[in-house]
Amino acid sequence: MIRYCHTLFLVFFCFSVSAQTITGFKPENTQDQLNLEATFESKLSASNLDTWMQQMAAQPHWVGTDYGRENAEWMVKQFKSWGYDAQIETYQILFPYPKIRELKLVAPTPYKAKLTAVPVDGDSFTAQGAALLPSYNAFSTDGDVEAELVFVNYGVPQDYEELEKLGIDVKGKIVIAKYYGSWRGIKPKLAAEKGAIGCIIYSDPEDDGYVRGDVYPKGAFKNKTGVQRGSVMDMPLYPGDVLTPGIGATKDAKRLDRKEAPTITKIPVLPISYEDAQPLLAALEGPVAPTSWKGGLPITYHIGPGPAKVHLKLEFDWKLTPAHNVIAKLKGSEYPDQWVMRGNHHDAWVHGASDPVSGMVALLEEARVVGALAKSGQRPKRTIVYCGWDAEEPGLIGSTEWVEDHKKELQQKVVAYINTDGNGRGFFNAGGSHSLQAMVQEVASSVTDPQTKVSIKERRIARQLVSGGKDQFELYALGSGSDYTPFIQHAGIASLNIGFGGENAGGEYHTIYDTYPHYKRFKDPEFAYGIALANAAGRIVLRLANADVLPFEFTQWHATVSDYLKEIMDETDKMRKDVEKHNSLVSKNSFELAADPREAFVKPVAKEAIPYLDFSPIQNSLATLKNSIESLSTGSLTDRSKEQLNALNKKLMQTEQVLTDDNGLPRRSWYKHQIYAPGFYTGYGVKTLPAVREAIEQKDWKEAQAEIHKLAVVFDKMNAHINTLIDHTK
Amino acid sequence: MIRYCHTLFLVFFCFSVSAQTITGFKPENTQDQLNLEATFESKLSASNLDTWMQQMAAQPHWVGTDYGRENAEWMVKQFKSWGYDAQIETYQILFPYPKIRELKLVAPTPYKAKLTAVPVDGDSFTAQGAALLPSYNAFSTDGDVEAELVFVNYGVPQDYEELEKLGIDVKGKIVIAKYYGSWRGIKPKLAAEKGAIGCIIYSDPEDDGYVRGDVYPKGAFKNKTGVQRGSVMDMPLYPGDVLTPGIGATKDAKRLDRKEAPTITKIPVLPISYEDAQPLLAALEGPVAPTSWKGGLPITYHIGPGPAKVHLKLEFDWKLTPAHNVIAKLKGSEYPDQWVMRGNHHDAWVHGASDPVSGMVALLEEARVVGALAKSGQRPKRTIVYCGWDAEEPGLIGSTEWVEDHKKELQQKVVAYINTDGNGRGFFNAGGSHSLQAMVQEVASSVTDPQTKVSIKERRIARQLVSGGKDQFELYALGSGSDYTPFIQHAGIASLNIGFGGENAGGEYHTIYDTYPHYKRFKDPEFAYGIALANAAGRIVLRLANADVLPFEFTQWHATVSDYLKEIMDETDKMRKDVEKHNSLVSKNSFELAADPREAFVKPVAKEAIPYLDFSPIQNSLATLKNSIESLSTGSLTDRSKEQLNALNKKLMQTEQVLTDDNGLPRRSWYKHQIYAPGFYTGYGVKTLPAVREAIEQKDWKEAQAEIHKLAVVFDKMNAHINTLIDHTK
Repeated sequence: MIRYCHTLFLVFFCFSVSAQTITGFKPENTQDQLNLEATFESKLSASNLDTWMQQMAAQPHWVGTDYGRENAEWMVKQFKSWGYDAQIETYQILFPYPKIRELKLVAPTPYKAKLTAVPVDGDSFTAQGAALLPSYNAFSTDGDVEAELVFVNYGVPQDYEELEKLGIDVKGKIVIAKYYGSWRGIKPKLAAEKGAIGCIIYSDPEDDGYVRGDVYPKGAFKNKTGVQRGSVMDMPLYPGDVLTPGIGATKDAKRLDRKEAPTITKIPVLPISYEDAQPLLAALEGPVAPTSWKGGLPITYHIGPGPAKVHLKLEFDWKLTPAHNVIAKLKGSEYPDQWVMRGNHHDAWVHGASDPVSGMVALLEEARVVGALAKSGQRPKRTIVYCGWDAEEPGLIGSTEWVEDHKKELQQKVVAYINTDGNGRGFFNAGGSHSLQAMVQEVASSVTDPQTKVSIKERRIARQLVSGGKDQFELYALGSGSDYTPFIQHAGIASLNIGFGGENAGGEYHTIYDTYPHYKRFKDPEFAYGIALANAAGRIVLRLANADVLPFEFTQWHATVSDYLKEIMDETDKMRKDVEKHNSLVSKNSFELAADPREAFVKPVAKEAIPYLDFSPIQNSLATLKNSIESLSTGSLTDRSKEQLNALNKKLMQTEQVLTDDNGLPRRSWYKHQIYAPGFYTGYGVKTLPAVREAIEQKDWKEAQAEIHKLAVVFDKMNAHINTLIDHTK
Repeated sequence: MIRYCHTLFLVFFCFSVSAQTITGFKPENTQDQLNLEATFESKLSASNLDTWMQQMAAQPHWVGTDYGRENAEWMVKQFKSWGYDAQIETYQILFPYPKIRELKLVAPTPYKAKLTAVPVDGDSFTAQGAALLPSYNAFSTDGDVEAELVFVNYGVPQDYEELEKLGIDVKGKIVIAKYYGSWRGIKPKLAAEKGAIGCIIYSDPEDDGYVRGDVYPKGAFKNKTGVQRGSVMDMPLYPGDVLTPGIGATKDAKRLDRKEAPTITKIPVLPISYEDAQPLLAALEGPVAPTSWKGGLPITYHIGPGPAKVHLKLEFDWKLTPAHNVIAKLKGSEYPDQWVMRGNHHDAWVHGASDPVSGMVALLEEARVVGALAKSGQRPKRTIVYCGWDAEEPGLIGSTEWVEDHKKELQQKVVAYINTDGNGRGFFNAGGSHSLQAMVQEVASSVTDPQTKVSIKERRIARQLVSGGKDQFELYALGSGSDYTPFIQHAGIASLNIGFGGENAGGEYHTIYDTYPHYKRFKDPEFAYGIALANAAGRIVLRLANADVLPFEFTQWHATVSDYLKEIMDETDKMRKDVEKHNSLVSKNSFELAADPREAFVKPVAKEAIPYLDFSPIQNSLATLKNSIESLSTGSLTDRSKEQLNALNKKLMQTEQVLTDDNGLPRRSWYKHQIYAPGFYTGYGVKTLPAVREAIEQKDWKEAQAEIHKLAVVFDKMNAHINTLIDHTK
């Protein structure tokens, strides 16, 4: 059966079997688990998802609303009725509600931005008027500014490099940036670093409007009045309540002064529709924007600065607001102190039928059936904890405060955290700790795609193949953007984030158009993928809850981490070659000769050469680690006692924490994980081996070399840990 | 000096020198030639170009107009005054003038296309009303059709492959295609092959409008009413008069019946503005167009078919029209029967300030100074022939008829033909026979760029380097699109096409906006690049006219041709890999699994495997040829008599004809050249080694293998010819 395993992938701890194996299960327990999962799947009901979505998304329910609290209370009641020990855990978090939102073009011709999305035929939810949360970016600072406008494309670092080439400075200006290209919070952060005094973000029809497809209500995409809300809190520094970094925002927690909170933006920032953006952009002169910057509006995109001049005034009602997390526990029959955690947020910017309700109702249905199975005598061996997080939208606040508050207990007890969020029709996507990749792959083989009737793994791989990708299933690395972040990146708990999508495109994200009618028309009309999600997540939860040996696997983990190192080394070589090429062109004066003398042009100067770094400490550590992992992989544990396996499991649970460093990443100590982090200048986008990678990207060679040594120590710790595991298998 | 030569490039026939060498000149003649060229350059006057452009572009002057004839007569007078033997040579060609142009959207809502560009402030030429040629595509057939509309992107072969994947057939429909992506004539040709009954071509603002920059009159780009005229004659079959393929369209020439003329389109075709296109496109439903198909209009691009239904009615006044070529000869002092030819067309679609007058006036100024030098005693050794072609725009008609009419004499006498056309500010571009590459490279080193004061060669290479290209000067291969085509591709005369551009973008091409005011604002305001063009072309002409040994060089030629073969072999391998990949995905059912079941999808089938072809006949011929060329390159001819050199030159002049085959290319016998041809499905775009390359592209393996053998024979003939040259150097 080692044979069976090896032909599929290198798994850790295989037990010999007759027909089918599941990683982590003894042969004599395998069929029971498969039967349990089959029963679980058979009891899932799509009509529950439909009914519950209609209820939960009936009214806007952002953090602090009555309807949000009612949803939380209703969920607690549901969980209780299903046999869970459920309760609300409330934190007091700072949440800004917009009091004043004004944006005017004051020159060359006046225009007052409407800042309001229109109700549409066939969707009465969009006509709830004052009940709808005004469009704004949470954790923008207050401000009242007037200045010339500059178009900065997506407002990411390379856009400012382009502006520099053109000799354009945003100092003292207000920038207007397109949504996309980065997490939105990067845009005001960078703009402020560059000296801008205000920031406008708009949805361009090319990325998010009629260029993509017919607009709502004819089609799913953003009409000219739709505005994407969203947080601009500096989450790459730390997420969660801005006043209580690192600790739970309990009623009596020690809080920062708001004026000192480092994750509130430095400049005012406001999101607008493309209807409101067009007059502003059309009023710009100056150089025509580079081809890749141009959007889908029927204008010539100029950069400015000016003559367009805008006035932006924002004022927020900064108040402590209660965030209600729902926590529901189903005590394990054999290992009550080993928790398998599962969560989805319940707060929404407006109605949030897709984000987050589509994921939340799948979680509820999963929990309902798991509870029913327990009642019928099939109680999981380990404790299962279902969570409904509040205040995810403004900055992962509910989950972060809860994790910070319970960190020690969680680090001792949690086997893994499985996250979901908004869900749609299409392909299975899974990210997370690569020690769980082998297990997720097995589950993905067991779940049937509702449209094509092949496994969700097979369909996923088919899509990869058609678009030129790999013929194997892989987890993507987690950056940020949903509630797994405090678990994996702060507490060092093995985590997953799963969902379906790719056939549910639309422009409703964080707008008043994310409603039940929109979801039913364009997302997952029969909730077939809601059921597939409950099925996949439920199987993962049940396997983790019942496994004889927890299904962590390190051969695939090692291969993935080694690939990350190779990427960084290749990237460094590429940077070196690019600088050499650049400097050669500078020395030949090629840039100047190739430039149009009638257009803006700043003559490039030679760049500092990229030094050679010594990566050997990591390489040597990884080589040693590989040998250890290979020793571990060959062990077979069929004849071990329950106690022996439990001792091993307790060690296995701790593995992810070995990959953290209590000091955290440079300049952001909240982020403890040394393999995965959101990028300091990408926001949601992941940076793997972040300390080393970002030092190199920022060309801080001294720090890069120091972080290489520190990362090697992390892998040495991992090696020691693997050797402890080996001891437990002897 | 072999040393000097080899360090720069491998040249043919170097003579030892003190300071500077010029390929083809004995040391004792080099300084005289350099002095001559310096004098030539010093006498060029930009103000002549300005004055003459104002005159020639004052009124519309397409073929058959009074103003076109007046321009021709005026040029003859000018040439005569400069000492040339000048005359008009007139052909009677078929030219269609539009009598009826009607385009209506008849469903779902009516719209009548305006088909008229508006006059603009500050440019009175655009207000000449009825004097402006209506917008149309010359050599569209007459037609009166009504059908559902289908959007076909650029209307090139890969677009129809995409439509097939979506299960969309254009049979019986009218297609609407964007300009660009291919020569315009390909669009109706392919559409008709696919069964469409009408074709509309429009200028999308993404390629040719406000997306690129501010529109006329604020900026240079196409405003919403501008329409690109142009020929849709099937030039890849044969250019020139549609009724007299292969022979001169003299008054009494034997003519085809118009109904049988194969180069008139099979279906009616009309070009329109983006203002007229928008209502048509906006009325389409059906699948949303693929991302890469989408243009810059503020709509969601759908493909159709329908519900948009259009009515297209076209009727032309098919008449024989006189085309007046201007031919001006300056008899050579030593070799009057060796002609260096130089041409530019003089007809325009409307005023044609840029196309063709900017090139025509540079040619005139060049001719004026060459004439003046001759008068002052510096008469060229060989005869120089300056030409002003009529009827280039409708299909290279003036030049083609003249070449067909004089083919025998030209094949005996012409050393080379140097073509120019519209010219602008920017970088030097040169295409042509690669045996002339070394010479053109030398000339490009001698001409100073007016803006940067480095050589035009250095500036060109700087641009290549900055965009990731090569650090060397190369000629591009000639496809079609200007008057070199009959010379090189039909008569086998070594040809060049040169010009400047890259800093003169605009949307005036073939519209009523190609006027003197537009040219002065956006193209080459001081005519500095007009002078640079006269300088470069004049030096090329003077070197060819005075060289002791004609400056043909074959080492670079051989390297280039070998690269073409490698390209084809690589492309065949890539086709094979792509088919293997495709078939593997078909066998795994990946395409179907990756497709959205709710969207149109036609299941792909396995493709026929790509066989291995035997390229060895060409490889062996090229290997032999390389050895011969190396023997030739080492020859030094310093001590040769004038008679010996003249005998060699007579052989050298014939070289390009060795590369032709009297039978021409498969299915288009007019095209005789075996190295360069316009693509059968690209139109202007070149296909090198066309018979072999196109057979492979069309997957006709039998023909491909046969053409490989035929091409090897051509290279064997070339080898024999090179050996004759070697004999002449012994």
